[in-house]
Amino acid sequence: MTEVSPNWNEFYGQEVATKLSFFSKEGRIYDCLFSQQFDRALLDRMFAVADKMRRIAQTKEGADFLSSLLSHKRAMLYFVQPSTRTFLSFLNACHILGLKASEIRDTNTSSEIKGESPEDSVRTFSSYVDLIIMRHPVPGFVEKTAWVMNRAKRPVPVINGGSGKDQHPTQALLDVYTLTSCLKDGVDGKTIVMVGDLKRGRTVRSLSYLMKNYKGVRLIFVSPPQLKMERDILDFLSRHLIPYRETDSLEPVLREADAIYMTRIQDEHDTAGESRNVDYSKFCLRTQDLAVIKKTCIIMHPLPRRDEIELTVDEDDRAVYWRQERNGMWARAALIAHIFRVEDQILKRA
Amino acid sequence: MTEVSPNWNEFYGQEVATKLSFFSKEGRIYDCLFSQQFDRALLDRMFAVADKMRRIAQTKEGADFLSSLLSHKRAMLYFVQPSTRTFLSFLNACHILGLKASEIRDTNTSSEIKGESPEDSVRTFSSYVDLIIMRHPVPGFVEKTAWVMNRAKRPVPVINGGSGKDQHPTQALLDVYTLTSCLKDGVDGKTIVMVGDLKRGRTVRSLSYLMKNYKGVRLIFVSPPQLKMERDILDFLSRHLIPYRETDSLEPVLREADAIYMTRIQDEHDTAGESRNVDYSKFCLRTQDLAVIKKTCIIMHPLPRRDEIELTVDEDDRAVYWRQERNGMWARAALIAHIFRVEDQILKRA
Amino acid sequence: MTEVSPNWNEFYGQEVATKLSFFSKEGRIYDCLFSQQFDRALLDRMFAVADKMRRIAQTKEGADFLSSLLSHKRAMLYFVQPSTRTFLSFLNACHILGLKASEIRDTNTSSEIKGESPEDSVRTFSSYVDLIIMRHPVPGFVEKTAWVMNRAKRPVPVINGGSGKDQHPTQALLDVYTLTSCLKDGVDGKTIVMVGDLKRGRTVRSLSYLMKNYKGVRLIFVSPPQLKMERDILDFLSRHLIPYRETDSLEPVLREADAIYMTRIQDEHDTAGESRNVDYSKFCLRTQDLAVIKKTCIIMHPLPRRDEIELTVDEDDRAVYWRQERNGMWARAALIAHIFRVEDQILKRA
Repeated sequence: MTEVSPNWNEFYGQEVATKLSFFSKEGRIYDCLFSQQFDRALLDRMFAVADKMRRIAQTKEGADFLSSLLSHKRAMLYFVQPSTRTFLSFLNACHILGLKASEIRDTNTSSEIKGESPEDSVRTFSSYVDLIIMRHPVPGFVEKTAWVMNRAKRPVPVINGGSGKDQHPTQALLDVYTLTSCLKDGVDGKTIVMVGDLKRGRTVRSLSYLMKNYKGVRLIFVSPPQLKMERDILDFLSRHLIPYRETDSLEPVLREADAIYMTRIQDEHDTAGESRNVDYSKFCLRTQDLAVIKKTCIIMHPLPRRDEIELTVDEDDRAVYWRQERNGMWARAALIAHIFRVEDQILKRA
Repeated sequence: MTEVSPNWNEFYGQEVATKLSFFSKEGRIYDCLFSQQFDRALLDRMFAVADKMRRIAQTKEGADFLSSLLSHKRAMLYFVQPSTRTFLSFLNACHILGLKASEIRDTNTSSEIKGESPEDSVRTFSSYVDLIIMRHPVPGFVEKTAWVMNRAKRPVPVINGGSGKDQHPTQALLDVYTLTSCLKDGVDGKTIVMVGDLKRGRTVRSLSYLMKNYKGVRLIFVSPPQLKMERDILDFLSRHLIPYRETDSLEPVLREADAIYMTRIQDEHDTAGESRNVDYSKFCLRTQDLAVIKKTCIIMHPLPRRDEIELTVDEDDRAVYWRQERNGMWARAALIAHIFRVEDQILKRA
Repeated sequence: MTEVSPNWNEFYGQEVATKLSFFSKEGRIYDCLFSQQFDRALLDRMFAVADKMRRIAQTKEGADFLSSLLSHKRAMLYFVQPSTRTFLSFLNACHILGLKASEIRDTNTSSEIKGESPEDSVRTFSSYVDLIIMRHPVPGFVEKTAWVMNRAKRPVPVINGGSGKDQHPTQALLDVYTLTSCLKDGVDGKTIVMVGDLKRGRTVRSLSYLMKNYKGVRLIFVSPPQLKMERDILDFLSRHLIPYRETDSLEPVLREADAIYMTRIQDEHDTAGESRNVDYSKFCLRTQDLAVIKKTCIIMHPLPRRDEIELTVDEDDRAVYWRQERNGMWARAALIAHIFRVEDQILKRA
């Protein structure tokens, strides 16, 4: 760990790239905060671990082996922002590896009403456990927790389960895991179509970032004019020579796609009901579209969905969003295995 | 599993008897939804398993054996209707068998606020686990969940922990288990007196149904005139040649009873405060009644109670309602053991 | 267990000393309700167990050994008063020893809305478990629970996790554990300065009581005049010949202290906003004070804090409040080990 400014605001203001080493130990992720922490080698390794765990877990003996690996560790799931999906995914990832988990899901039951600072609360909770998994509505709060903990006498790794509207690294992880495992011959060279509210959806943003780890990928962004992908991502893609195209018309690009990544409208981020002026019906996938897309094309969605994807599409083999969700649990388990250095035991098992 | 209509409403409208095979696999219960799924052979077998588990659990070695049986399985308790009692009973049944449990007890923390359909939510939760135990206020919702899951690529068994006001099969299970284990020589030939709000109490309804599995049982229904047992149950009893009698006077029938099943008034189902016009004091059991009833008569209550049973009655050996409650945990554990096919391992253990 | 009045109010009105034997079995604590249950021999033994567990837990093999000790037991954490800190501390103490835990943290989800009495609710919950850990806002409620359970056919031990504003025995336990383990040569002969709202802080009250177990201890109480230590405690100290001094000025006594026990103002107990008239700034510890206090002096705080201790103090090696918090988990684990009689297995392990 490098020397680091003792001033949080100064630290926080730095570029992510500059900060990464502070959250690593001996060449591996210690706190998982940003999707920028994943490079190709690490992604490939984690997916291999996830694949292997799934295979091992198919027998009782194997599942018992997995849950013995971290039976000596205790985790805290601190989820003060509503999120049953991510919460359950992490909790069951803990169960798979045998970590004993404590939950905080509602700050009403907490000491915060006694006037304690959030930093003190988090430090308190960390006292009892070996890992903190945290989702928090305040941007930067999870990062600050990791920063505080790393400077404490008894550091504890922190995993970001969604912080503010920017970072949700394990969602990016499971999306790439799904692309890798469901696309024939992997991600390299593929055309990925991202559809919907690209301006405010953090999953499509993170996923775009991670594409720099792959060769020959082409992106097509399909969105209402008001909800186009933000400039910073487009600049990033240009800088990394990743070709992309923007359009507001889904139908013409469907047949080009190797993967279609659908998203819902993020109207919880509306400031003045602006979503009501968007005709989102043009950014939905319907049964008739199934006749148009490639036989090998996969359909993804980070869920929850509203009506961006017709229910009848679920029955098609190319619809992989339910598998994608389940992939999340395994990808998270692989991340935890990485942090606690038990990957080798998993990979070596016959 | 038989071919089944792909239309939920069509399926739901069928007779229960017609639907049972859809919720079974290889001759055993897969989803436990209706008390009609229990026949005599199955009941006897499950009670034997429950009895055996209690005996095994008395030593540390035995308890550790039990909790190794399903240590490779994960359960989800989805209880969005208030019910601490049933919740804890199921959770501890999971603990006995070693299942790792996730809880959802409050939909406020869920993605439903993001516009997801209940069906999608349930499917999401199922992604991470091997068993769903569900309590839900909407009639038919638990059944629909099982129906949806059975048609999914990765089915997961569903146990009904109480759905709407009709079905609560594991309550019926624990009631019959209590009758079987507390009545000398079992249920056959006994007189069971059911007391109180028979119109709206689902436990007395289910229990009446299950009596068709026993020989020579006689039922006496004691209720206020406004809260008599419903016609459909009486017809069912007549059809199965089970003798019954109705009265609004408890005292005269007390001495006939082999089991007295007390219930509270279900005023949460009032539509216009009609319970206020009922004199429920005549449907209570008091200390002086203990001198009247048979020495072998058992007193049951599904709990919670209000003042249908005087506190002093608790001290009498014939008051078995606390044992009945505890029986619930073991009966539920036996059901889970049945679904996951580990009964033989339990029964075979020395 | 001695014969005891079957009338709760009569029992409750007795002196604590008279009641202790009712909550003990075979010379050891069965229900842990009062700090008066701890004598010197027991404290020393529990701290030895706590120390030993920490050492054992440092290896995976050791941690797995600990969590095998009570893997056959189930606990219920019934915390209907907000308290994340104590809750997590107990939950993780259970995890360390392998107990499977059920939680009730919100009575809204409970049957109380169906008209059940609190005593029936508690008895219900106890049906499923082997240990109840309880925090309750009503004074005497935890004691009543233990009293009810001890008279039931299937008694279950009860641990008080904070009841009303009087008793919080495990907080006292962890405070003395911290004094014992952080003070060179232990507690005997030391000067302890308690600072702040001594009138309404139950931790300083319990801690004062427990000082009768140590030799030559001197207490200095520093508080605003309105918030002085109550008469009953001062009388207790006089009776046990424990010298104490009262002052409203912190600075002059700082250099005498071997331990400084800071507390926050308990304004949740205000009846008419009286805390607003208190100048609490004089009862705070600041960085400049660190130059004044002894090199060996330890700084404690039961947490949560507001601004009684400046954040910069945290970095000083003499600030032990975070360790104190963590000590709580180990002290509670030692108490549970005592109740279930597995201390010898812990102490004997190499």
